[in-house]
Amino acid sequence: MTYRAPINDMLLSLNHGAGLQAALKAGHYGDFDADMTAQVLEEAGRFASEVLAPLNTVGDRNGIKLADNKVTTAPGWPDAYQRWTAAGWNGVSGPEAFGGQGLPLAVNAACTEIWASSNIAFGLCPLLTLSAIEALDAHGSDELKNIYLEKLVTGEWTGTMQLTEPQAGSDVGALRSRAERQADGSYRVFGTKIFITYGDHDMTDNIVHFVLARLPDAPAGTKGISLFLIPKFLVNADGSLGARNDIYASGVEHKLGMHASPTCTMTMGDTGGAIGYLIGEENRGMLCMFTMMNQARLGVGLEGVGIADRAYQQALAFAQERKQGRGIGSKTDGMDPIMVHPDVKRMLMQMRSLTAASRTICYATAVALDIAARSPDAKVRTEAAARGALLTPIAKAFSTDIGNEVTSLGVQIHGGMGFIEETGAAQHYRDARITAIYEGTNGIQAIDLVTRKLAAGGGAAVWALLDELNGIVKRVEGSNDPAFGTTGAKLRDAVDALERSSKWLLEKMASAPNDALAGATPYMRLFASALGGCMLANEAMAARDGEGDSARYVSVARFFAENIAVQAGSLERTVMDSAEAVLAADSALLG
Amino acid sequence: MTYRAPINDMLLSLNHGAGLQAALKAGHYGDFDADMTAQVLEEAGRFASEVLAPLNTVGDRNGIKLADNKVTTAPGWPDAYQRWTAAGWNGVSGPEAFGGQGLPLAVNAACTEIWASSNIAFGLCPLLTLSAIEALDAHGSDELKNIYLEKLVTGEWTGTMQLTEPQAGSDVGALRSRAERQADGSYRVFGTKIFITYGDHDMTDNIVHFVLARLPDAPAGTKGISLFLIPKFLVNADGSLGARNDIYASGVEHKLGMHASPTCTMTMGDTGGAIGYLIGEENRGMLCMFTMMNQARLGVGLEGVGIADRAYQQALAFAQERKQGRGIGSKTDGMDPIMVHPDVKRMLMQMRSLTAASRTICYATAVALDIAARSPDAKVRTEAAARGALLTPIAKAFSTDIGNEVTSLGVQIHGGMGFIEETGAAQHYRDARITAIYEGTNGIQAIDLVTRKLAAGGGAAVWALLDELNGIVKRVEGSNDPAFGTTGAKLRDAVDALERSSKWLLEKMASAPNDALAGATPYMRLFASALGGCMLANEAMAARDGEGDSARYVSVARFFAENIAVQAGSLERTVMDSAEAVLAADSALLG
Repeated sequence: MTYRAPINDMLLSLNHGAGLQAALKAGHYGDFDADMTAQVLEEAGRFASEVLAPLNTVGDRNGIKLADNKVTTAPGWPDAYQRWTAAGWNGVSGPEAFGGQGLPLAVNAACTEIWASSNIAFGLCPLLTLSAIEALDAHGSDELKNIYLEKLVTGEWTGTMQLTEPQAGSDVGALRSRAERQADGSYRVFGTKIFITYGDHDMTDNIVHFVLARLPDAPAGTKGISLFLIPKFLVNADGSLGARNDIYASGVEHKLGMHASPTCTMTMGDTGGAIGYLIGEENRGMLCMFTMMNQARLGVGLEGVGIADRAYQQALAFAQERKQGRGIGSKTDGMDPIMVHPDVKRMLMQMRSLTAASRTICYATAVALDIAARSPDAKVRTEAAARGALLTPIAKAFSTDIGNEVTSLGVQIHGGMGFIEETGAAQHYRDARITAIYEGTNGIQAIDLVTRKLAAGGGAAVWALLDELNGIVKRVEGSNDPAFGTTGAKLRDAVDALERSSKWLLEKMASAPNDALAGATPYMRLFASALGGCMLANEAMAARDGEGDSARYVSVARFFAENIAVQAGSLERTVMDSAEAVLAADSALLG
Repeated sequence: MTYRAPINDMLLSLNHGAGLQAALKAGHYGDFDADMTAQVLEEAGRFASEVLAPLNTVGDRNGIKLADNKVTTAPGWPDAYQRWTAAGWNGVSGPEAFGGQGLPLAVNAACTEIWASSNIAFGLCPLLTLSAIEALDAHGSDELKNIYLEKLVTGEWTGTMQLTEPQAGSDVGALRSRAERQADGSYRVFGTKIFITYGDHDMTDNIVHFVLARLPDAPAGTKGISLFLIPKFLVNADGSLGARNDIYASGVEHKLGMHASPTCTMTMGDTGGAIGYLIGEENRGMLCMFTMMNQARLGVGLEGVGIADRAYQQALAFAQERKQGRGIGSKTDGMDPIMVHPDVKRMLMQMRSLTAASRTICYATAVALDIAARSPDAKVRTEAAARGALLTPIAKAFSTDIGNEVTSLGVQIHGGMGFIEETGAAQHYRDARITAIYEGTNGIQAIDLVTRKLAAGGGAAVWALLDELNGIVKRVEGSNDPAFGTTGAKLRDAVDALERSSKWLLEKMASAPNDALAGATPYMRLFASALGGCMLANEAMAARDGEGDSARYVSVARFFAENIAVQAGSLERTVMDSAEAVLAADSALLG
C-alpha cells in the first residue's frame, strides 16, 4: 500500500491542538493566510504519495554505493530530487529574499512529517539543508549569503552538518579537525569527520558542507570551535562551479536502517586542505551550531511522528485485511479480520494515540518558534521563545521514542510476516531506530529539559505551560461528556504529578544535581504524557465544537489518557524515589 | 567482546529466586545432585564462549543459501553443530533411556539461556528438536521411538515443527495440508508449509519433520488435525538412510534478523506425497502439538532472557570503555567513561534488572514443570502443573518483550555506533524481534493467561502464587534494611494491584468477556512486574543471608521495584478503565 497524508488529523492538530488558529487570531502571524495551510498540505501529500513513497522500498533494497570517493544513490532518487526542487518543496519556510516561500515553520513542520512518513531516508537530506540555511542566514556574511543561500533554499545544492569525529560524539568539544588561516581571509581545513549524512551523493551538482574545526590558537573545549562553510566544488565569481575542493567521502557506513541515506566518513586535507570560509566569528562556532541544532531537533522529532504514522497506516490496512480466528460473538461465516480482536484494537489505538500526541507536541513547538520570530510584541516573542525552547527536547525525544514503540507495534500486528523484510513493516522499525540517537541522544534531550529548560527562570516556562494545561483539564472535567470516560481525572492526576516532579527536580538541581539527572528520562516521559494527553483532549473538544466527525478524536484522547497519561503517577514516583538505586548502580553493574 | 555466562547470577536465580533449592530439600527432585548444576553451567558457559559466540556475527553476515532445494548454513556452523552433539549438549534433559542425561528442565533452562545468549540463531535449532522429542516421547508409538528418538535426543538428527500455512498462522485450525491413508499403515502428505525454522540445513544427514495435516474425512477446525512424523530421508530397517522423501525446502525468507537460521517454505507432494507416520491418534494432533508448544514457549522466553543478557554485557563493556563528557564533580583529567552519567547508569540498571527478573520467571517455570513431572506426591504434581501452566505465558511474553526493550537500550547506549551494523548491538536488536511473535504472539500469550490460566479453578493458581508473593513482601518489609529503599512499599502496592485486577478480570470473563480481553496485555505486564519484583527481592534476601556479595542483588531488586513494579498501579487502572475506549476503537481507527 502507498502512503496517504492524514490531512484532517494534521489540520486539527495544527490549528487546535498546537494553537495555530489562536496565534493567527492574536495577530502573531501578520498577513499569513490560514486557508493556504490545507492547500499546501494537500499538495505535499500528493507529491509524497506519488513521488516519494514508491521509492522508499527501492532505497532500502538498493542502498547507496561508494566508488572512487563518489556516492551513487538508489535508482530514481536523483530524478525524484529534481522533481522535489522543481515543485518548490525545499523552500517552503525559506526566506523569501533568497527564493523561499516564507511560510510559517508550523506549515513546514507538517510537510516535514509528510516527507518523513512517505520516505524518511529521502526527507533527511532536505532536513539537513534546512539547518544549514538557518545557520548561514543567521550568522553568515552577506558575501557568503549571496553566493550560497539561494542555492540552498531552492535545493539546487544541499547542505551537510559536520560535527562528529571518532572521539567527539555527544561531546562535541573534543573535536580535533583543524583550520589554518590563509592570507586571503579564507581557511584551509584538515581532518576526518564521521557519520556525515548525505556527505556525498549524486542528486545535485554541488554540496555545501558546514564543518566545525579548531584554529591553531583556539582555547580547549567548546569555546575553541569555529564553523566553516566548505563547498564540494568552489564557486567562481560568475556563480559557475570551479575546482573540486579537498573534501571527500572516504567511507560509508553499513547501517541498521536508512539504507538509502549515505552516512559518510569525510576526509579533508589530503591535497593541501579543504578551502573553507568562516561563518560567524572565530571560536564562536558552537553558537552557530546551536542555531542549526534546535531546528534539526524538531525536524528529527517530526521524523519520529512520520515514521510512526506510516507504520500505523500499514498495520491498520493489514489488520483489516488479514483474517485469523473469530471475534467473540462474531456472526460471520469463517474467519474475521484480526482487527476484531480487542488486543489488536489496543495495539492500533496505542499506535494512533501516541502518534497523534507526538504530532501535536511537535507542531506546537513549531508554532512557538514562529511566534518567537514573527510576533510584533517583544514580550510575546520572549515568552514564545521560552516555550519553543522548553518544547524542543520533548518534541525530539518523545516523538522518536514513540517512533520506535509504534514501529515495533507495527511489526507485532503483522505477526510472522512482520519479521519478513518483504512486508515492509520491518523497514520502518529499522529506519526509526536512529532518530532517538542522532541530533543529541534522547538521554541528552532529557538532561537538556531538566538542567536548562526547566531550570530557566526558576521554572517560569513550565509554570506558564501548566497554567494552560490546568485550563484544558478543567474544560474536560466541565464537559460532562460520558464519551471522555475517566479522561478528566487521569489528566488531572498527570498534570499534578508533572507539577510536583518539576518542583522536586528544581530543588534537587540546587542541592543534589546527580539526583536530578538520574530522574531526567522518566521526567521527560511524564512531561510528554501529561502534555500530550491535554493536547489531545483539547483538540477533541475543538472537534466536538466544530462540524465534522468528533467521536474519533474523543476516543483517541480518552485512550491516551487512560493508557499513557495514567502512567504519570508511577513515573513521578520513579523520578523521586529511584535516584539512590541509580547512583548506586556501580555495585550492581560491576560486581 | 565475547560472551561470558553470568554463572553466579544464574545460580542465585535458579536456586533461590526460582526455588530449585527448596524443591530439592522437599525431595521433589529425587536423587538429583544439586552440586552438578554449577558444574554443568560452567561447562555450558565455556562451550558457548569458545564455540558458539564467535559464530554469531559470522552467521548474521553470511546468512544461509538455498540452491536446488538444499540449504547451506554459514561457514563453521556444521562443524560447531558436530562439536555440540559430541559434547552431549543436545541431550541435557533428554530421556536417559534414549541417550539423554535426564537432568532437570531447570538445568536445561539455564543452558538454553546460555545458547541463546551466545548465538540465538544457532540455539534455535536444538530448541525445536527438543519440542519434537517431547511430542514423540509423549505420544509416539514404540516403533517410531525406537527408530527416531535416540537420534533426536543426541542431536544426530534435528527436528522441525510444521504448523503454519499462508492462511493458518495464529489460527492453526485453518490449515489445509492433507494426508492420505496408505495400505501399509503409513500416510502420504501433501501441502505447503511456511515459516519452517531449520526446515532444511547441512548440519546433519537427516531431519525429522513433525507436520500437522488433515485427513480427507477429518472434521473442520482444530478437531480435524493429525500430527505426522516425516523424515527427510526414509530410514531402512537396519537404521541406515534410505530414499529421499517428498518434502523439500522450496523457498527461504529474507528476514529482519536471525539470518543464520533458515526459515523455509516446505513443499510436500511434488512426487507422489511425503511418506509420513502418525503420532498419537488421528484427529488428535493438536493435543500433541500442545505438548510441544508449552516447552517451546518457555524456550522462546529463555531466548528473550539470553539475547537481553548478551546486549547488556556488550552495552556495559562499551559504557566502561567509551569516553565522552565529564561526570558532575569528576576529578579526572579529560573525559570520563560514559558510565559515570546517571542517565547511562539508569539504562544499564534497566537492562540488568529486566533481564534478571525475566530470568527468574523462566527458571521458576522450569522448576514447576520439573516438580509436576518428578514429585512422588500426586497433589504436589497437580499444583506444580498448574503453576507451570500459569507461568508459561508470562515467561514467554514478558521475557521476549523485555528482550526487545533491553536490546533497544543496548543500541541506545552505543549512540551513533549502535546504528552501525559492525558494532553488533543492532544484530541483537534485530534478532530479538521475532521472539515476541513466534510460538504464539505475546498478545496470544496474554489472552491465554487471562482466559485459561487465570480462569482455571476460579483463579486457584493465581491465589496460591499471591500467597507466596505476600510472604516475600512481608519479609522485605520486616527486614528494615535501608538498602532496600522503598522496595517493600512498591511491591506491596504491586501485589495488591495484581490481586484486584485478577478478581476484576475473573468477574468480567463471565459478564463481559471482551472487556477482559481488552485488558489482557496490560494485565500480563502488571503480573510480570509484581512477580518479577518479588522474585528479585526474594533472591536478594537469600544473597544477604548467604555468604558473598549481596549489595548488588539488593540494588537490582530495589531498582526493579522503584522503576518497573511501581507501574503496577497505573497498569491496574488501564486494565479496569480502558476497555471502553479499546472496544470503541473502530470509530477512531476507521474514520
